Amino acid sequence: MEDFELALRGAADRVEGELDRILTTDIAPEQRLIDAMRYSVLGGGKRLRPFLTLQTSRLFGVSERSALRAAATIELVHCYSLVHDDLPAMDDDDLRRGKPTTHKQFDEATAILAGDALLTLAFGVLANPETHGNPAIRADLVTRLAKAAGGHGMVGGQMIDLSAPGTNLDIGSITRLQRLKTGALIEFACIAGAVLGNAPSKAREALRGYAHDLGLAFQIADDLLDVEGSAEEAGKAVGKDAGHGKATFVSILGPERARDQAALLTDQAIEHLAIFDDKADLLRSAAKFVVERRH
Amino acid sequence: MEDFELALRGAADRVEGELDRILTTDIAPEQRLIDAMRYSVLGGGKRLRPFLTLQTSRLFGVSERSALRAAATIELVHCYSLVHDDLPAMDDDDLRRGKPTTHKQFDEATAILAGDALLTLAFGVLANPETHGNPAIRADLVTRLAKAAGGHGMVGGQMIDLSAPGTNLDIGSITRLQRLKTGALIEFACIAGAVLGNAPSKAREALRGYAHDLGLAFQIADDLLDVEGSAEEAGKAVGKDAGHGKATFVSILGPERARDQAALLTDQAIEHLAIFDDKADLLRSAAKFVVERRH
Repeated sequence: MEDFELALRGAADRVEGELDRILTTDIAPEQRLIDAMRYSVLGGGKRLRPFLTLQTSRLFGVSERSALRAAATIELVHCYSLVHDDLPAMDDDDLRRGKPTTHKQFDEATAILAGDALLTLAFGVLANPETHGNPAIRADLVTRLAKAAGGHGMVGGQMIDLSAPGTNLDIGSITRLQRLKTGALIEFACIAGAVLGNAPSKAREALRGYAHDLGLAFQIADDLLDVEGSAEEAGKAVGKDAGHGKATFVSILGPERARDQAALLTDQAIEHLAIFDDKADLLRSAAKFVVERRH
Repeated sequence: MEDFELALRGAADRVEGELDRILTTDIAPEQRLIDAMRYSVLGGGKRLRPFLTLQTSRLFGVSERSALRAAATIELVHCYSLVHDDLPAMDDDDLRRGKPTTHKQFDEATAILAGDALLTLAFGVLANPETHGNPAIRADLVTRLAKAAGGHGMVGGQMIDLSAPGTNLDIGSITRLQRLKTGALIEFACIAGAVLGNAPSKAREALRGYAHDLGLAFQIADDLLDVEGSAEEAGKAVGKDAGHGKATFVSILGPERARDQAALLTDQAIEHLAIFDDKADLLRSAAKFVVERRH
């Protein structure tokens, strides 16, 4: 696990550098917006999604430059979604990654606009020739990201999460909700490397299966942390789901069966990687990491 | 002017049809989100930006299908920006296009998510092969739209507008603000046709000049309507700028000089079109329309 955590930290540093480069700081009257965008993105986070993109890219010999641009794009989208989800009208959170949320540090209007600008920037970065020499691959990535992040993906999942009266959800509905809310972007993070590397469909299918099981395991682990973790470890408020009477994997299955289920999903995720050689070892470690992490 | 208004209405109908098709209504738990997206987009608006895309596309023999897809994309972005700008934390408006604003009709969280999903959808539509057979053109459009709509474009302009203490702005600052806030997307609407039609750089320059002057004239006319129009005609609250002590073209120049300036910009905009034949007549009419309109 030490190798993995070292690799994860190394990837996070490289992604941080790329995000810093993308979020240029030329002085302008809209400086406040740029400040809020940088605040929302830089200096924190495990960068798990970009790690997945960097690692799946390695399987297919994708250039570091291309992989890093795609990885940064995904982190921009992830961070925009956190900024908007934290707003008072949504989850109303004050703490994120151990710092005040963007609307607390700035104000609500700035947080809304910073999220909008990050999402817009993500598509601009992805479509730019710097990301890949082949425009068909760039356009394909944009289409896939729009699907993963949009009304039938991440945003759709957040809508269900906000509007569903928690107690009515069964395990099937929660699975669907999480597949949309967190699973779609995790799947995109894994598939982006395959698209950049023009991978054969068998490899894509394997990564899709891996992403699916990893995403669910990740969510169950998140639900467990919300019940069992401390705010200090998590870097955000905990105990919120139960406080809101929200149905989660843990509230329905109980912590023990939820933990078993997460372990099962981890094994399944790793099995999907059987067609890859030891180049996929860090992806195997990632599957273990998401359920063992304490934050 | 009758021909023009007929053409504008015809274009609006075709754009409405395309938007209706794009915003599919397959039943899903996130139905509320789709409902809010459709509410925010369909059944209203002059559709001036998509009209500009359809007309500039005609200059270069772009297929109706491609032009309509790009036009619909721009309207999706425009509508998302209205939904977010109307939020209580932003301009706090209750009325838009004569109907309750999205957060009034639904709620704030739904309005934030509907805006996010519309913006995301716009990029997905633009990058999709249905929009144009050449992926390089699609990727180019995505890059340009991201620039026009992002932190150094529309969203940046909105940030300046919200944070600038109105009284400190001079005419140069207001011009820059409006170039970002409304000008960038209007320019994209005009250039999209040239990109789709692979137009020579001289034609692109002409359209950029046209869009620049048209955009400013449009904004001055909007400021005049805010002072002189009725809420009934405008379909939204009026008198808000003065109420907020906001510096506008009208507050600085006075109504008479502002009107002269708008007329001058209209003439300039039309002059830029000199290199085009009578195929550009409706674009010439559009320049007159934006300053003569009562809503």
